[in-house]
Amino acid sequence: MNCAAINRFLESDFPQLGGKDGGYCVVDVDSGTAVLRLMAGSQHLRPGGTVSGPTLFALADVGAYVAILAHIGPVALAVTTNLSINFLRKAGPGALLGRARILKLGKRLAVVEVAITPEGDDDPVAHAVATYSIPPRDALA
Amino acid sequence: MNCAAINRFLESDFPQLGGKDGGYCVVDVDSGTAVLRLMAGSQHLRPGGTVSGPTLFALADVGAYVAILAHIGPVALAVTTNLSINFLRKAGPGALLGRARILKLGKRLAVVEVAITPEGDDDPVAHAVATYSIPPRDALA
Amino acid sequence: MNCAAINRFLESDFPQLGGKDGGYCVVDVDSGTAVLRLMAGSQHLRPGGTVSGPTLFALADVGAYVAILAHIGPVALAVTTNLSINFLRKAGPGALLGRARILKLGKRLAVVEVAITPEGDDDPVAHAVATYSIPPRDALA
Amino acid sequence: MNCAAINRFLESDFPQLGGKDGGYCVVDVDSGTAVLRLMAGSQHLRPGGTVSGPTLFALADVGAYVAILAHIGPVALAVTTNLSINFLRKAGPGALLGRARILKLGKRLAVVEVAITPEGDDDPVAHAVATYSIPPRDALA
Repeated sequence: MNCAAINRFLESDFPQLGGKDGGYCVVDVDSGTAVLRLMAGSQHLRPGGTVSGPTLFALADVGAYVAILAHIGPVALAVTTNLSINFLRKAGPGALLGRARILKLGKRLAVVEVAITPEGDDDPVAHAVATYSIPPRDALA
Repeated sequence: MNCAAINRFLESDFPQLGGKDGGYCVVDVDSGTAVLRLMAGSQHLRPGGTVSGPTLFALADVGAYVAILAHIGPVALAVTTNLSINFLRKAGPGALLGRARILKLGKRLAVVEVAITPEGDDDPVAHAVATYSIPPRDALA
Repeated sequence: MNCAAINRFLESDFPQLGGKDGGYCVVDVDSGTAVLRLMAGSQHLRPGGTVSGPTLFALADVGAYVAILAHIGPVALAVTTNLSINFLRKAGPGALLGRARILKLGKRLAVVEVAITPEGDDDPVAHAVATYSIPPRDALA
Repeated sequence: MNCAAINRFLESDFPQLGGKDGGYCVVDVDSGTAVLRLMAGSQHLRPGGTVSGPTLFALADVGAYVAILAHIGPVALAVTTNLSINFLRKAGPGALLGRARILKLGKRLAVVEVAITPEGDDDPVAHAVATYSIPPRDALA
């Protein structure tokens, strides 16, 4: 799947992200990697103007999911089984990139790491590693 | 702080939870523990009717935060540094309880575990362990 | 499997734990739980007399493994896929208990939490959550 | 500290790694990174000839510690507070590299990621993220 196809899939299957107005957009997909961009606006901020934990969690989780989706296609509904996230420094409003990199893509489990950085800044604000369970092929028939 | 005081604090300082209409309510605080209740409604669900990952993340994170808050008071603004969550089985709409238990409450770090169960069911749908950095006392003056 | 059977299994299949002289012993198995005891001696200590990280990791990992083993038997060779451990306070030499509790025992994945305490003290020195992949039944034939 | 100085420090302060005969050696230190090499031999293997979990844990933990040590010096005794490790595929005997990369080096906390690969192979066998508490400067006087 390319970026446009994945963006259409996210809009139809993850409506809670807010579709085109929700701020999420897949901007790159490559071998073993994907980049999800979030334009963090007022709905993503806590008092004090910092991006909320659940927003960063969602960016990591969906970013990792997109990387898997790009490699095995939309029929396989991977399910998050574990996500461990470190919050490294405060993130303000504006564009954030979730750079996902597949560490393992097995038949039953996939493990993906995601570094979240402000756009144009390599210093991460958060870093996550997530595990996904991939359903058996015959369950997909 | 008792439950009522904590609920007022959450409404004023965590408006993104949605206040009284957001579905979150502290229902119990005891020595080393706290229970946060979420009435999971349509805004918390993914397609298919299961509670979303960011919703469970927020329930765990705020539940753990409440347990710390109840023990050290609202002046100390604890910051989440790490949260690791395991998703164990699908959760449907209705009341969920985030049962937080403090594993360590040190001068600089607190570690809290949270089991999330449907109300009236001891089988957890998710389990998280979170670490919070507690600011130095002189930074609070 | 009862405690004696599990201890025999550990001695034959985990010789690196040191067998009877290694200090590990399963002391209790119950519904959904298991307790592994380690008599921490000089080989488990770092300079300064505190129990080393790899020793606590091994106690958590083997304790969780024992809980699964007691419930599904030795034919199913569960493999650790993730282990997250929090070190809460220093542990000195002497008896440590790894109290394992199964959070989920599914067909493909098991999730187990382990609290490590000195014997006779409820305050944990470490806490871990581990995930195990359980091989498909037909792979065991 | 350069590689030679760190190797001397490891031999004197981490004797349980086995010193020169233990198989561990710091082979590279650079800005924000360090590489720890382990020659995995029979003492590091489980039955079946795969490198044990505690060995991979130790390689990740010490590798991350070395990266911090190289940047703040040996006076600051950083303490591991959390380590989350994913086991991705089996590792056999031979040389393993723990490639540590600092994600955050704050005044109180450092977060380091470590990818463990066989030497000459970029496909990781394990991946860990660890957090270290850094003692206050005045505690070091």
